[in-house]
Amino acid sequence: MQLKMTLDELNDFLDAQFEQVADDFEVLDVAPMRATIRANIGDKHLRPGGTVSGPTMFALADVSVYLATLAMIGPKALAVTTNISMDFMRKPAAGANLRAETRLLKLGKMLVVGDVLIFSEGEDEPVARASMTYSIPPAR
Amino acid sequence: MQLKMTLDELNDFLDAQFEQVADDFEVLDVAPMRATIRANIGDKHLRPGGTVSGPTMFALADVSVYLATLAMIGPKALAVTTNISMDFMRKPAAGANLRAETRLLKLGKMLVVGDVLIFSEGEDEPVARASMTYSIPPAR
Amino acid sequence: MQLKMTLDELNDFLDAQFEQVADDFEVLDVAPMRATIRANIGDKHLRPGGTVSGPTMFALADVSVYLATLAMIGPKALAVTTNISMDFMRKPAAGANLRAETRLLKLGKMLVVGDVLIFSEGEDEPVARASMTYSIPPAR
Amino acid sequence: MQLKMTLDELNDFLDAQFEQVADDFEVLDVAPMRATIRANIGDKHLRPGGTVSGPTMFALADVSVYLATLAMIGPKALAVTTNISMDFMRKPAAGANLRAETRLLKLGKMLVVGDVLIFSEGEDEPVARASMTYSIPPAR
Repeated sequence: MQLKMTLDELNDFLDAQFEQVADDFEVLDVAPMRATIRANIGDKHLRPGGTVSGPTMFALADVSVYLATLAMIGPKALAVTTNISMDFMRKPAAGANLRAETRLLKLGKMLVVGDVLIFSEGEDEPVARASMTYSIPPAR
Repeated sequence: MQLKMTLDELNDFLDAQFEQVADDFEVLDVAPMRATIRANIGDKHLRPGGTVSGPTMFALADVSVYLATLAMIGPKALAVTTNISMDFMRKPAAGANLRAETRLLKLGKMLVVGDVLIFSEGEDEPVARASMTYSIPPAR
Repeated sequence: MQLKMTLDELNDFLDAQFEQVADDFEVLDVAPMRATIRANIGDKHLRPGGTVSGPTMFALADVSVYLATLAMIGPKALAVTTNISMDFMRKPAAGANLRAETRLLKLGKMLVVGDVLIFSEGEDEPVARASMTYSIPPAR
Repeated sequence: MQLKMTLDELNDFLDAQFEQVADDFEVLDVAPMRATIRANIGDKHLRPGGTVSGPTMFALADVSVYLATLAMIGPKALAVTTNISMDFMRKPAAGANLRAETRLLKLGKMLVVGDVLIFSEGEDEPVARASMTYSIPPAR
């Protein structure tokens, strides 16, 4: 299996298509069926106590599986999240960015399944785990 | 089972503790083991095409189970989300607010489980479903 | 929405197609987008301590959403489970049968989503909650 | 982190405590925070068409996280499954045994989180993915 989008193309796609959140995320690495994405944590992502909010981790997992999928099928498709399951296991380190390690477990014609481990940068143990299903609409 | 917080107390708690998102949510109704919460949808919650973003729906489900729990155990506790599972079933109506109907299925000493149906206001069929587990830290 | 299979037709289908487990389950009630199924609990479903095993509850949730789906689309389809999320909330009563209350939240062309509450017969509070997605293969 | 149970001790525990299903499973390998378990597939695990049943895969995932946990905390504890999320991604090969590769992502005092990839023996791509949470009751 080969990549249909390079690291630069994925970051350009993110900037062009997701203006509102483009500054929040950066693709650090991409490989067939895998991607590493960073979330740049700022004040708006924090909850009282300085911890990163759940919705921020959700958004990171969601965009990670999406971009890992587009890297394999190209930028044309309009994939839609249909299911997510997440476990929040540790409190993210205050003020640290997050890094999501994503691998696609299934890349079907209709359904894509990926799983994601999220780390506070500089830490070895994951703060959260996610698995997501994307549905790929049939080509017209 | 009796409520330990009224509708007004829940909304005041939301305003005081979650400044950053307090304008986004409003508790519409609360009853033992149940709550109805509205998400006020603005531009920052939308994705290209005008649809409400996944993280917005996640945040609504998360805050809904949290507030339904506090209504039962009082505002002192520091509950932490440990697990969420969501199904995204329909595209939310563009420009419509969301309404989350939450019921608690288990209110244990250590774990709380709730489920949530999310609707676009004015629609009969849910746009998303969530189930969440909160862990309640042992009292010191 | 109308039913395409009656209560008797669903039970006959269960007997004919799932010989190995047909004695384990009985459809008690069916309505549009809803079904109630009983699991007849015997020794083979128990774990040490007399509690009903997790796989038995999984099987009940799985067959319940499957049969609720077939009631709506007819017995021809070959639906496949793609995702399940379950919360185990209370210990099932020893020796009691289980009753699953299922409702379909989405009945799409490609994906069906249902949720299930499982009760020990005679009890008011659910022992488990499940949500499941079935994929319906495209007609050839 | 060190193991508190060896491979032989885990298999002996399985035989002694889970008589009804002891023949179904065999621990192939154990390491800190990891275990590999085989499910021996026979007629009773199959569905029409020769495929392995969902409940069999559920049972394999469940026992795998349980044994990986006991390997770390010793055979005394009575851990209880509180949540499972599974994705069924491919049809298991007919007649092939299953192999579950489990890793523990969190080993807390109260909650353990593990994830599992299930393979048909001899195949490279997983047939299913599971994540599970076990609750560990407080010591008395």
